[in-house]
Amino acid sequence: MKPSHIEHIGIAVNSLAEAIPFYEKVLGLKCYNIEEVADQKVKTAFFMIGQTKIELLESTDPEGPVGKFIEKKGEGIHHIAFAVDNLEESLREAESQGIRLIDAAPRRGAEGLDIAFLHPKSTFGVLTELCEGNKMNH
Amino acid sequence: MKPSHIEHIGIAVNSLAEAIPFYEKVLGLKCYNIEEVADQKVKTAFFMIGQTKIELLESTDPEGPVGKFIEKKGEGIHHIAFAVDNLEESLREAESQGIRLIDAAPRRGAEGLDIAFLHPKSTFGVLTELCEGNKMNH
Repeated sequence: MKPSHIEHIGIAVNSLAEAIPFYEKVLGLKCYNIEEVADQKVKTAFFMIGQTKIELLESTDPEGPVGKFIEKKGEGIHHIAFAVDNLEESLREAESQGIRLIDAAPRRGAEGLDIAFLHPKSTFGVLTELCEGNKMNH
Repeated sequence: MKPSHIEHIGIAVNSLAEAIPFYEKVLGLKCYNIEEVADQKVKTAFFMIGQTKIELLESTDPEGPVGKFIEKKGEGIHHIAFAVDNLEESLREAESQGIRLIDAAPRRGAEGLDIAFLHPKSTFGVLTELCEGNKMNH
């Protein structure tokens, strides 16, 4: 596996409406998309900075992954996503090196990317996402 | 403030020696520098991916900021650093917008960068670093 760049950083927040002004007015980034990912029980807001997106995540269900994360740890950085050329191959490679996978096969994430998560128990506490596709910039 | 890219992502780990092989052998990144930052009571290991560095942080003192972070939250993503053109001006701007600063003035961080931290209470739980200088790539 040889990821090309950090595709996005996922950040769990209580409220998109409250957090977006920090990224827009203080950091000077522009929110270019808000999208609901029903599957993950989140609403997401995206900002582009260089090669990387900031993806704010507001939980839509306390039982969803971001709802549980915030309950346990509070607001904060939730995951890092690495862009890879071949997700399926990267997953098999990681698996063969003893890495525990959350997603054994690619699934569809926000913005039409194919994604899969590695388990933080295998990655020194960092929830690590791999993603492929959709190279467009904003 | 208009940061150009994410300069680095800081990740707290118990042991550089244990964590480096994940980044090198599984993700395929190369550790190009290991450096002690006495001031911050950490040893750091750096990897370049696209425009961004991964900075692993091993505490050298349980009373240091990373030691305390790990005690409270465990290993995981510690902070995000945004590259800005003018750090002093960016700090004044943030302050005038009501953002609480950890560092009221720039100080010297790893790799010769001038850095300053914003307080996570003002940034929706994300320990946010601004940094300026040293644009070299590895």
